[in-house]
Amino acid sequence: MIDESRSATATFTTPEREAVYKAIFSRRDVRRFVSTPIAEKVIERILLAAHHAPSVGFMQPWNFIVIRDPGTKRSIKQAFLSARAQEAEQFTDARKELYRSLKLEGIQEAPLNICVTCDSRRHGPAILGRSLNPQTDVYSTCCAIQNLWLAARAEGLGVGWVSILSEDRLKEILRIPIHVAVVGYLCVGYPERFEAKPELETAGWLRRLPLRDVVFDEAWDGIPAGE
Amino acid sequence: MIDESRSATATFTTPEREAVYKAIFSRRDVRRFVSTPIAEKVIERILLAAHHAPSVGFMQPWNFIVIRDPGTKRSIKQAFLSARAQEAEQFTDARKELYRSLKLEGIQEAPLNICVTCDSRRHGPAILGRSLNPQTDVYSTCCAIQNLWLAARAEGLGVGWVSILSEDRLKEILRIPIHVAVVGYLCVGYPERFEAKPELETAGWLRRLPLRDVVFDEAWDGIPAGE
Repeated sequence: MIDESRSATATFTTPEREAVYKAIFSRRDVRRFVSTPIAEKVIERILLAAHHAPSVGFMQPWNFIVIRDPGTKRSIKQAFLSARAQEAEQFTDARKELYRSLKLEGIQEAPLNICVTCDSRRHGPAILGRSLNPQTDVYSTCCAIQNLWLAARAEGLGVGWVSILSEDRLKEILRIPIHVAVVGYLCVGYPERFEAKPELETAGWLRRLPLRDVVFDEAWDGIPAGE
Repeated sequence: MIDESRSATATFTTPEREAVYKAIFSRRDVRRFVSTPIAEKVIERILLAAHHAPSVGFMQPWNFIVIRDPGTKRSIKQAFLSARAQEAEQFTDARKELYRSLKLEGIQEAPLNICVTCDSRRHGPAILGRSLNPQTDVYSTCCAIQNLWLAARAEGLGVGWVSILSEDRLKEILRIPIHVAVVGYLCVGYPERFEAKPELETAGWLRRLPLRDVVFDEAWDGIPAGE
């Protein structure tokens, strides 16, 4: 049982800190699942982790639709296949062949799918911190997804985010109201294995950038703003 | 030193799993910092954690502008004050008074500020998984911010996300190109303390929703799609 009220003032021991980094560095986008069922208490723990994400103005704009029904999964798999066929046309020649060879989802194999949505009307209309960028509610929802992903990794569960889906079609299948946005569609289950590297890196799709290439000092491209 | 190549297949012991939940549940949006400097190796660790977030099509669209210069912080604090004055007008009477009484940032007190951006052109134009929703690159960037936030918590560092800022003004101050989006502006430093609850909850701004209110089974509002 999780003690949600545990003291926030607690410091982290070195092994505790290392465990957090272990979750961060060994998290993978998983597309190959085994059928082992997931205990209800584990599902509740990862959802509670998601619900404890930061949110703009403490808005908590997220919902989690937990899907187990094979008929629903089948409809969503069909939606994925259409979307993938459409997306494949963006690539040419060898790149298109590589794209088609990749396994990009485990919708039907994963015992659980979770659709994560963002309700921009929650606690509104005025939300503290959201007036300058209305998209910040979606940002909060993404933080919730990352919490869930890391909690799942610590539970030995794999998560795969399927972004090759039409939002309109998902909303139709899951009866999501017009004003609510679909942010993520996740497949959740015990993985065949956790890969050492992202599959797109192993497949030669793209390489991981060196950290120094994405960090700047003081201003964009590293030139202090005052100079 | 972090072993980035540590086996991804490693399982989590119960104490390791608990440490991940501890980071998730004790993470706070921090606005009160002490001036203790942050060691370079700690800064590098939290940036590396951010860089290991999931990204759509392995796009890694993020950049991290690390700001220490007091002049730059002063300009950004001014931008915050204008934005806050503008946002306050959304609220009336007691709500406006409460809004004005809240401390919502620690831009100048925090030894470090980090502006997190998203470059939608990186590795493009065609990005695997992004054709149906171009915003997925921003979603990836939010996952990077949440990784950084949790790694920082495990390091004993507080992070505050300042969303009451004009993106245009930030881009001007930090010389960020037009096509690059600012996703988050973070204050980072050792906190006076980690609060037991979010400050907006303690101040009576909003309450945390019960988990059961945000979880649905099978479809929106819990009615299976087939019925």
